[in-house]
Amino acid sequence: MSAQRLKIGCAGLGRMGKRHALNFLERTPRAELVAASSPDPVELEWARAHLEPFGVRLYQNYDDMLKQEGMVAVVIASATAVHAEQAIKAIAADKHVLCEKPLSTNAEVSQSVVDAAAKKPHLKVMCGFSRRFDISYRDAFAKMQAGQVGTASVFRSQTCDKLDPSGFFVAYAEFSGGIFVDCSIHDIDLALWFFGANSRVKSISAVGNTAVEPDLRKYNDRDNAVGLVEFWDGRIAFLYASRMMAAGQEDVTEIIGTKGKLAINTQPAMNHVNVYDAGGIHREIPQTYYDRFEYAFVTEANEFSASCLDNTPLPLDLKSAVQAVQIAATLQESMITQKKIFFDEGGDRTELACL
Amino acid sequence: MSAQRLKIGCAGLGRMGKRHALNFLERTPRAELVAASSPDPVELEWARAHLEPFGVRLYQNYDDMLKQEGMVAVVIASATAVHAEQAIKAIAADKHVLCEKPLSTNAEVSQSVVDAAAKKPHLKVMCGFSRRFDISYRDAFAKMQAGQVGTASVFRSQTCDKLDPSGFFVAYAEFSGGIFVDCSIHDIDLALWFFGANSRVKSISAVGNTAVEPDLRKYNDRDNAVGLVEFWDGRIAFLYASRMMAAGQEDVTEIIGTKGKLAINTQPAMNHVNVYDAGGIHREIPQTYYDRFEYAFVTEANEFSASCLDNTPLPLDLKSAVQAVQIAATLQESMITQKKIFFDEGGDRTELACL
Amino acid sequence: MSAQRLKIGCAGLGRMGKRHALNFLERTPRAELVAASSPDPVELEWARAHLEPFGVRLYQNYDDMLKQEGMVAVVIASATAVHAEQAIKAIAADKHVLCEKPLSTNAEVSQSVVDAAAKKPHLKVMCGFSRRFDISYRDAFAKMQAGQVGTASVFRSQTCDKLDPSGFFVAYAEFSGGIFVDCSIHDIDLALWFFGANSRVKSISAVGNTAVEPDLRKYNDRDNAVGLVEFWDGRIAFLYASRMMAAGQEDVTEIIGTKGKLAINTQPAMNHVNVYDAGGIHREIPQTYYDRFEYAFVTEANEFSASCLDNTPLPLDLKSAVQAVQIAATLQESMITQKKIFFDEGGDRTELACL
Amino acid sequence: MSAQRLKIGCAGLGRMGKRHALNFLERTPRAELVAASSPDPVELEWARAHLEPFGVRLYQNYDDMLKQEGMVAVVIASATAVHAEQAIKAIAADKHVLCEKPLSTNAEVSQSVVDAAAKKPHLKVMCGFSRRFDISYRDAFAKMQAGQVGTASVFRSQTCDKLDPSGFFVAYAEFSGGIFVDCSIHDIDLALWFFGANSRVKSISAVGNTAVEPDLRKYNDRDNAVGLVEFWDGRIAFLYASRMMAAGQEDVTEIIGTKGKLAINTQPAMNHVNVYDAGGIHREIPQTYYDRFEYAFVTEANEFSASCLDNTPLPLDLKSAVQAVQIAATLQESMITQKKIFFDEGGDRTELACL
Repeated sequence: MSAQRLKIGCAGLGRMGKRHALNFLERTPRAELVAASSPDPVELEWARAHLEPFGVRLYQNYDDMLKQEGMVAVVIASATAVHAEQAIKAIAADKHVLCEKPLSTNAEVSQSVVDAAAKKPHLKVMCGFSRRFDISYRDAFAKMQAGQVGTASVFRSQTCDKLDPSGFFVAYAEFSGGIFVDCSIHDIDLALWFFGANSRVKSISAVGNTAVEPDLRKYNDRDNAVGLVEFWDGRIAFLYASRMMAAGQEDVTEIIGTKGKLAINTQPAMNHVNVYDAGGIHREIPQTYYDRFEYAFVTEANEFSASCLDNTPLPLDLKSAVQAVQIAATLQESMITQKKIFFDEGGDRTELACL
Repeated sequence: MSAQRLKIGCAGLGRMGKRHALNFLERTPRAELVAASSPDPVELEWARAHLEPFGVRLYQNYDDMLKQEGMVAVVIASATAVHAEQAIKAIAADKHVLCEKPLSTNAEVSQSVVDAAAKKPHLKVMCGFSRRFDISYRDAFAKMQAGQVGTASVFRSQTCDKLDPSGFFVAYAEFSGGIFVDCSIHDIDLALWFFGANSRVKSISAVGNTAVEPDLRKYNDRDNAVGLVEFWDGRIAFLYASRMMAAGQEDVTEIIGTKGKLAINTQPAMNHVNVYDAGGIHREIPQTYYDRFEYAFVTEANEFSASCLDNTPLPLDLKSAVQAVQIAATLQESMITQKKIFFDEGGDRTELACL
Repeated sequence: MSAQRLKIGCAGLGRMGKRHALNFLERTPRAELVAASSPDPVELEWARAHLEPFGVRLYQNYDDMLKQEGMVAVVIASATAVHAEQAIKAIAADKHVLCEKPLSTNAEVSQSVVDAAAKKPHLKVMCGFSRRFDISYRDAFAKMQAGQVGTASVFRSQTCDKLDPSGFFVAYAEFSGGIFVDCSIHDIDLALWFFGANSRVKSISAVGNTAVEPDLRKYNDRDNAVGLVEFWDGRIAFLYASRMMAAGQEDVTEIIGTKGKLAINTQPAMNHVNVYDAGGIHREIPQTYYDRFEYAFVTEANEFSASCLDNTPLPLDLKSAVQAVQIAATLQESMITQKKIFFDEGGDRTELACL
Repeated sequence: MSAQRLKIGCAGLGRMGKRHALNFLERTPRAELVAASSPDPVELEWARAHLEPFGVRLYQNYDDMLKQEGMVAVVIASATAVHAEQAIKAIAADKHVLCEKPLSTNAEVSQSVVDAAAKKPHLKVMCGFSRRFDISYRDAFAKMQAGQVGTASVFRSQTCDKLDPSGFFVAYAEFSGGIFVDCSIHDIDLALWFFGANSRVKSISAVGNTAVEPDLRKYNDRDNAVGLVEFWDGRIAFLYASRMMAAGQEDVTEIIGTKGKLAINTQPAMNHVNVYDAGGIHREIPQTYYDRFEYAFVTEANEFSASCLDNTPLPLDLKSAVQAVQIAATLQESMITQKKIFFDEGGDRTELACL
């Protein structure tokens, strides 16, 4: 370890942007947050109070920030719609990039980021799939690699958010790409991690409903969705996403192998407290995705910084982020069109459904 | 309660037959096991040691047993292939019938039992879906009925057997109707219970693989199977069945409602013991379906007896057993043909898949 | 197994008496409940409805019941105050005896039952420590015997009742012998089982309080009590008893060995249901001792019957019941006098405390 | 929040010293580690690699470090034997002090630190009872304060370490003050927190054994110890400490109130992974105290820094640290002498034991 620190700027200071900014400011010893940008005056106001006193330079304009002397990396935590554009600009400006997931809600646009990065192999460009940095998922992956469950054959995973009674997620659905692209993309990324990035999809089918928020249909979205992904080597992933959990965030994964099963978070808990009272035994669970994965984001910031400073391989490959978007978008399509969608071994769609 | 007891005969003395016979002999105070039949000399040998000393009359031939004086009911625990035939004969002989699930692997044959029963409304004819008698499922159902989880909207359920390394299940697959008919039928029955027997299927899709036993393909079967059932009111059931669990029997159900979730057996345990040792904390889980549901079978025997003796309604309706077979067989078909299968609101198949 | 059945009578038809009577009537295939006695007209009224129709003869007077032709055993479930007297009379009448715990709240009186039984070695005389028949305790014991935790060295156990807001337990305390004799006796019996009946006590100390029911002090009792029992071989048992649990019955035991720990019921649950709602995850726990140990009582009835019929050794030794009472009464004394009490290796009290 | 940072030095660079140094260096945004001292050349070697490159000045001599310009606080993580001396010197040098527990193994020496601090009320002097900073304990405390369990009446707590097969703890026992002072002091501090610092002890009794390491007796220590602490208001604390856990660190606390119970860590787990295999369901647990409480130490560093910078009250009172040592040392004495020890309401010992 050297005393050199990664000078990084943060694009976007919304909910996730603030977290990334503070993580790079306070919890990433080998990084130094030197800049932050947001077009939003309210967000900049927050930054003047919480970032500027610690030497962080603020920008209204992302392009201006990119020109800041000495800054060598950016973390992109802006709206999904501009992820790809900002990433490509940063690459052009010769910056390392940590981009929030997804690169884009569209697979082709996502691919354009990969293409841009491919031309600058000296840069570290990573899509931040936070669960890959969570100690539980890593422990499970290590145990699978060590052969503890034999051959992983079936993968069940869910990303289920606590119901937001404000209904904010309806407006959000207009640009999110839909529940599979917004939520299940984490599960899909995990499936590609545990099954291997070379896994080729054979078929996709999905159903959804609107149990609490019929207005989601305006944007071709649903509040509960279940998807089946079948791979050419016979492996199966089945995914559940929901926006109406009552108790909190419920992100659960099971990897079922020929000799055992790895279960991650099948007994969710916010902390180590159980309350015994006249109603029985109670415990609380994390309320948000960040409650559950806070330390994974910290680890992500630290490992990204180390990769950039030490020029070591990134912990996850950018290409798999494109594949994840592709699968997510196809699940969304299958749910909306009601069609089962097939792919040949080369990855092209086939019309088997109509035989 | 009166001191009168239900005189009952047991058809079939295989694995489940022995259990039913002993339950009616020893753990059903209001019943009296008076007869048992099996064409198998080994099974009869067992019966001579364990049933005959307690006054149970033994038969090689089912039809002969039906003629036994005073016997007013039969429990049918023979091979699935003869369930329907034996049930219909018993009804013809004016006996109450408790038939092991499924009535048949075929929906039409199953319907013929319902039709026969419909003509003798004074008889009690029940298909033994054991989980309906389990205290945990009943507690969950009561809580749902009491409104604790709002409107049940998504149903996840699995019936997963411990791997039998003898591979017996391959031979068994020839006649079982397949993994959805053999295993998932329990989950389907539960879905119809929790969602209501009037739920009409809109679409069915399924995938499967053979992770441990490729030979299952000979009989159009799989060792892991995942199915999606969409209902016309928007509710969704997704089901997982497996024959390769390493730890034991894992039968889990979740009912996800608009205001909460009911989780049944998401933390399986054989008993109340945890072992702490150098490897961490360990517990064992039930090894077989009967380990898990033993007392549900006892309750089933007791409640069936009470219904017959007191002429009170049976705890579950025979018609729903036909619907369960129909859904199970369609899931099996979808898995094998790879097609998504659609139904109109009247219950007829449509060809939407080919649009 | 033969078809012969143990003809047994039940003394006492209070809360536990009813349960024992019904267990022998309905859930003990090798036994036949032939008689029952109670001096209480209300209890006899219940028996006329629930036992008499099944051929059980009823008595107001225990002595009369003992004379019933053909009856070869009695289960004594009357008030603790008459346990010993009834047991001795039954032995005198040459009956096998299953006596509810404790034999007496007094060690000398308890010993008199042992002495009476010793003179009739052909009789089976057992004190019903129900937990010895619980599958979890048995599983833990087998695991300890198999060496899974090394040498058992520390024993923690608790018997904690749900608060009865009627305050009934205050009146009850007058005759119960106190919280250690009434509740902790189960834990003491378990300690003697797991540590071995030859364990000799070296010191005893205890404290208690009256957190909810100060009136218990009238009868030298407490509603919370903690006791330490040190054995001459260095092993330690520490016990907690309470009458004010909010959630239900919490009976927990841990056996801590040199190579591991066995934990019994550290995660109590009434069944397999968890409810997820806005308050988090909830589950219910057993409300009463019988809720938790119902099937242990059934097993007890069955195994006692088998021992009598087959003349095989009883599953637990009568002498240890005396030792348990002795330890319990000394804990109670220590709690009330505030003194630590010492014993020499021969089992006699010493005055080491005053050195 | 201001951009000013607390310039702090770290005394001692052993196992805990390294952790404190790194926490103040990397995970305490409002602090700046400016100095570190150790008499041990190996520890200084480590510091040259891990601290010096980040601007931390190193000292062989604690007194020299105290003179460093600009340093305003010290964290004392040296051997327990010098805690008090170093704390008093730091106070004399007008530094804020965060001292690892215990202040001393001796209550009088501990009191001398309190006395020194009392003369400099502008300084922040805190004893680092890490569990007070753990989110689970804090959540439990908040729930108790909110009345969720009524009046807390019984307190059960344990600090149980994984067996160190090297037997290091035998040598360590010579100076640790014994198992109650070294381990149970955490539980005692928690009891004083949950019951209130004004709780006055009425009686203390304890027993111990040497199940795995008889050599501990040379230093009047034991490897398993159970203690009872009775307070004058009737509350009871019972404590268990062990050095022979097989599975890992097991630190459990229960607060039993008149309306409910708070249970902390009764279901220990290292992370969210459960492995299902042929042996059942397994999970790992933290292996060391630091594994379990790592983030509590980080919070401690951050909150201590904030108190010093903002001149706000410390989260815990120094006086209670003396009381904790006093109770711990009395438990140790009771265990060794076998005597129950009594105190009057003024806190003086009485000779009730000899009545």
